[in-house]
Amino acid sequence: MLLARVIGNVVATQKNQRYEGSRIMLCRQITPEGEDMDYTCLALDSVDSGEGDIVIIAQEGWSASTAATGKPGAAIDSAIVGVVDRVDLIS
Amino acid sequence: MLLARVIGNVVATQKNQRYEGSRIMLCRQITPEGEDMDYTCLALDSVDSGEGDIVIIAQEGWSASTAATGKPGAAIDSAIVGVVDRVDLIS
Amino acid sequence: MLLARVIGNVVATQKNQRYEGSRIMLCRQITPEGEDMDYTCLALDSVDSGEGDIVIIAQEGWSASTAATGKPGAAIDSAIVGVVDRVDLIS
Amino acid sequence: MLLARVIGNVVATQKNQRYEGSRIMLCRQITPEGEDMDYTCLALDSVDSGEGDIVIIAQEGWSASTAATGKPGAAIDSAIVGVVDRVDLIS
Amino acid sequence: MLLARVIGNVVATQKNQRYEGSRIMLCRQITPEGEDMDYTCLALDSVDSGEGDIVIIAQEGWSASTAATGKPGAAIDSAIVGVVDRVDLIS
Repeated sequence: MLLARVIGNVVATQKNQRYEGSRIMLCRQITPEGEDMDYTCLALDSVDSGEGDIVIIAQEGWSASTAATGKPGAAIDSAIVGVVDRVDLIS
Repeated sequence: MLLARVIGNVVATQKNQRYEGSRIMLCRQITPEGEDMDYTCLALDSVDSGEGDIVIIAQEGWSASTAATGKPGAAIDSAIVGVVDRVDLIS
Repeated sequence: MLLARVIGNVVATQKNQRYEGSRIMLCRQITPEGEDMDYTCLALDSVDSGEGDIVIIAQEGWSASTAATGKPGAAIDSAIVGVVDRVDLIS
Repeated sequence: MLLARVIGNVVATQKNQRYEGSRIMLCRQITPEGEDMDYTCLALDSVDSGEGDIVIIAQEGWSASTAATGKPGAAIDSAIVGVVDRVDLIS
Repeated sequence: MLLARVIGNVVATQKNQRYEGSRIMLCRQITPEGEDMDYTCLALDSVDSGEGDIVIIAQEGWSASTAATGKPGAAIDSAIVGVVDRVDLIS
């Protein structure tokens, strides 16, 4: 899983039926220290995350579909599976 | 999933039978701000997308096959699963 | 899926039984304009492709195994699933 | 699988139910010689690893879910599956 | 699949039970011409490969688990599935 910050969302009227009723969040990966990285991706929200939140993203079809819709086999490869309260680094 | 723009398509007569009747679109990844990136890929259309459209691509065999053909196990790892109307970034 | 050119093949006597009778092709990724890229990979042929051909490669275990052997669960993560006749780019 | 060092952990109250009772470790990939690399990821612990340990991480939904929870289909794409005692390089 | 050279192995006493009795090989990716690349990974041996061998590595959970243990669902994402005798490049 990767650490990311929610930086926006995407609106798509014409889409796969499995996406109905779900929010497609735009996320940017961050370092453990919280700095922005180049990598961005789209992920379905499954934990009621909001814009600006630091989140955990799972990226694999079976896992992400199950997290986001409760069923495997949906057309989903990335889901937000947690909202991060705190990152503890070894000092 | 990733954000991309449809930049063309590929014609292949000699191909896996699961591709029959499907359009193989050539797509270029874009940044959230809409700028071209280096990464390009081929993706089966599953939402009647057209050239020039900004699209959402799912990249994983189980998910992409299900989206593009209604069944898992097809020889497909990337499918266009949505056409983007609008990207909303946190200002 | 990715666009690639077949640049050779690999001979391996000591191998997983699922590879028996299949050709293991060495492929180099190309840009939509046909230029060589750095990325190379091995892919099982499933569409009678030949050296020098521009091909479509699917990269995911379930999809690639099904394409190359007709069954999932083979020890295969990449298969050639089409031979490209023509790439049409938006002008 | 990849070699990594456990460098911390992440606390998330609001998360997918499959993560309940599991520790989410923050890991940094290392070279075979033990030097830090840029890549970091989050992985569920499945072998009672501790901070500072050199570990083996498996990264794929089916495998990682099975390792971390005993069942496939969990919202997990990376799990710590071993604690490394020794790396032997050909001299 | 990718071309690699076996450069060592890893000893781990505390590990997932599916790894019992298997050798965890440390591998470095090579170019088609045989030159070392930066990428290294850990892969379970399934074809009795030895250190210094040029090998074929399959990287995907379902495929790699099946190759290495005969069953899917093991905590394995990479397996050595062949020992290369010869690489034939188009001249």
